[in-house]
Amino acid sequence: MAERPAATVKPVEESEAAGRVSAVFDDIKATKGIDFVPNFWKVLATSPDLLEGTWARLKGVMHPEAAGKATRLDPLTREIIALAVSATNGCSYCVNSHTAAALKLGLDAEGLGEVMAVVGLFNMTNALADGYQIEPDVFPPRD
Amino acid sequence: MAERPAATVKPVEESEAAGRVSAVFDDIKATKGIDFVPNFWKVLATSPDLLEGTWARLKGVMHPEAAGKATRLDPLTREIIALAVSATNGCSYCVNSHTAAALKLGLDAEGLGEVMAVVGLFNMTNALADGYQIEPDVFPPRD
Amino acid sequence: MAERPAATVKPVEESEAAGRVSAVFDDIKATKGIDFVPNFWKVLATSPDLLEGTWARLKGVMHPEAAGKATRLDPLTREIIALAVSATNGCSYCVNSHTAAALKLGLDAEGLGEVMAVVGLFNMTNALADGYQIEPDVFPPRD
Amino acid sequence: MAERPAATVKPVEESEAAGRVSAVFDDIKATKGIDFVPNFWKVLATSPDLLEGTWARLKGVMHPEAAGKATRLDPLTREIIALAVSATNGCSYCVNSHTAAALKLGLDAEGLGEVMAVVGLFNMTNALADGYQIEPDVFPPRD
Amino acid sequence: MAERPAATVKPVEESEAAGRVSAVFDDIKATKGIDFVPNFWKVLATSPDLLEGTWARLKGVMHPEAAGKATRLDPLTREIIALAVSATNGCSYCVNSHTAAALKLGLDAEGLGEVMAVVGLFNMTNALADGYQIEPDVFPPRD
Amino acid sequence: MAERPAATVKPVEESEAAGRVSAVFDDIKATKGIDFVPNFWKVLATSPDLLEGTWARLKGVMHPEAAGKATRLDPLTREIIALAVSATNGCSYCVNSHTAAALKLGLDAEGLGEVMAVVGLFNMTNALADGYQIEPDVFPPRD
Repeated sequence: MAERPAATVKPVEESEAAGRVSAVFDDIKATKGIDFVPNFWKVLATSPDLLEGTWARLKGVMHPEAAGKATRLDPLTREIIALAVSATNGCSYCVNSHTAAALKLGLDAEGLGEVMAVVGLFNMTNALADGYQIEPDVFPPRD
Repeated sequence: MAERPAATVKPVEESEAAGRVSAVFDDIKATKGIDFVPNFWKVLATSPDLLEGTWARLKGVMHPEAAGKATRLDPLTREIIALAVSATNGCSYCVNSHTAAALKLGLDAEGLGEVMAVVGLFNMTNALADGYQIEPDVFPPRD
Repeated sequence: MAERPAATVKPVEESEAAGRVSAVFDDIKATKGIDFVPNFWKVLATSPDLLEGTWARLKGVMHPEAAGKATRLDPLTREIIALAVSATNGCSYCVNSHTAAALKLGLDAEGLGEVMAVVGLFNMTNALADGYQIEPDVFPPRD
Repeated sequence: MAERPAATVKPVEESEAAGRVSAVFDDIKATKGIDFVPNFWKVLATSPDLLEGTWARLKGVMHPEAAGKATRLDPLTREIIALAVSATNGCSYCVNSHTAAALKLGLDAEGLGEVMAVVGLFNMTNALADGYQIEPDVFPPRD
Repeated sequence: MAERPAATVKPVEESEAAGRVSAVFDDIKATKGIDFVPNFWKVLATSPDLLEGTWARLKGVMHPEAAGKATRLDPLTREIIALAVSATNGCSYCVNSHTAAALKLGLDAEGLGEVMAVVGLFNMTNALADGYQIEPDVFPPRD
Repeated sequence: MAERPAATVKPVEESEAAGRVSAVFDDIKATKGIDFVPNFWKVLATSPDLLEGTWARLKGVMHPEAAGKATRLDPLTREIIALAVSATNGCSYCVNSHTAAALKLGLDAEGLGEVMAVVGLFNMTNALADGYQIEPDVFPPRD
């Protein structure tokens, strides 16, 4: 597999970035407090519109403190949700990325095991509920 | 749709339950502190082995306090993960069930909106990472 | 939901079928030994090419006896696989259809419970294997 | 990973192909105008029935010009749909294959970025619609 | 199912909308040229941040003409991709919504049949490629 | 990719296992009749609770003979279902593992081709049924 590029398109390296792309790269590093641009963003940079739009949405959801917003969920819980989604979808890049982020925020191996236990369990029960076409329980209306 | 049964098999009603099934039904209600048996378990009861095995796993993961275990994750975080998995899989029964459980544990509409924002976002980025076949970033080994 | 049609397009009823559509409808009933055309095929009939192509593939895979072929898998095993796929994908139409077919071929509630136990289990372990990005075990080459 | 074979079965190389397999290999190269047999077909060739049936369906859908058929969709749109499906499913082989095919048909990096933006967006909104169990809007019946 | 609300939360009706929510509702109707607010947005309005952020992303991707942008893909192709993603994910709300939008943009039943043929085909080949773990073909690097 | 560990956590090697982990490792090898611990279990061992709970469920479902239970499904059919689920989810580890297990139980290349043909077919029809939102056929109630 050595002949394959790192992705289906050639990522834009930081040294090649200019204009809008460079500005987003700088904002990613500053907002996340990291000193490199992850591959995800270097690949999206092949389409500056996609880069800008995706970063705007991710920044809004995952870095609300940058906009001075208070939130119900804390950063670790958000990363745990991201990991749960990525494990369910089987997304290799994303599982690696969000596991690293969750560990950095303090989750340890035992905590990661609990997350995976819950993720695994409900992938099982989802298949059972769909596999038997079980009707939703009726709960009182919510206001 | 009136002619369809509630599921592909006829659920076992509480009044029909006996033996192993009745014991699991009682344990579900006692452990969860509810006064009815959800449809999920009434359907699984059509196969007592499946009912027992699934309940044993779910009880272990979601009700560790019943075994006197301390955990890293709190009950609301576990329900949020369950909801994230269920939304990603599009499981109707499960989304209804885990939304009700999360709201009962204190999540409000704004908090639910934050959960959904994160779930939606990473279903988007998962598709992008897979859609470009982006290589994982290399992180230092973890011990 | 009463205002919604049975699907996003208006199914072609048997009384409306003509030409290629009518020929496929007849072949479906004869090959499957049923006296009605399931909704799946009535909807696909809105595009005769889609109807013909899909039926040709399904007939080849699921009714090899019509071509005088011997097979490794028996009809019940094929329906069980179909149900496992449909439960994993959460396809409502398909779960209903393949459960009915498997029961007709002799699977009872306990057997269905075993199928679901396996389907549920491996949806769980799939999420765990992907969630930890576990490397495949190395097996000796297969010839 | 060097010890792993290229797939779970040993692909049938062109030099090993005979009879039905050789005929399908030739038709694939002629119909697609390529001078090699992609890995996908070399692996399917381990089961000649699977090879023939899958190629017959793919040829019918993706190469209608071979049957002298006029179509609503042009070849690039079909490849874009193939890529959207493959990105959504996270299929590595398929994303690589359909990206290459779409680029060969004229899509450039910016166009690929637009495709991915739409694919990402609707994976997000799908999760939101399922995550809230939003009822379909009622549209007037379609004839 | 009559007792169930239209979703897991009570949608915000247009008559109840105020402030940010009302502004987004107006922009949706004006940008899309429709005279009602679809259920999707009425449900997201239970969390104004989610409503605003999701609409901003969707407007950017699906209504580039509102920002005076030229694009590679035309509106019908974008809706076809949306439908392909939604069918692959099995999202009921989304399939209904994007089918209606594609038909409004001129797709007819035969064209819809072609879309579905391609969507179905590549869900099949994705499962085969993953099911055999087929290695990607090596293409020359792309610049 | 040489720098990446075998998974997002460092697997527990057999030589490092102690206490509960060692006991589960021994039971896995004895129950399955193998002389090594697969990577799956070595990774789960980073969380002994996850290891024990997952093994208990898998042993119950896949090795009922260990509990002296008679079953409707035979071991090969269970592995075929596991493979069908794993191919549908695109789980690399699991496809490799269950293909090896099925071949060991006697499935040959032609039989594997039949399994894949059915798996591929119903991933196609699932997408079609969901893509047109086809209503389930009404079957007589089942008792």
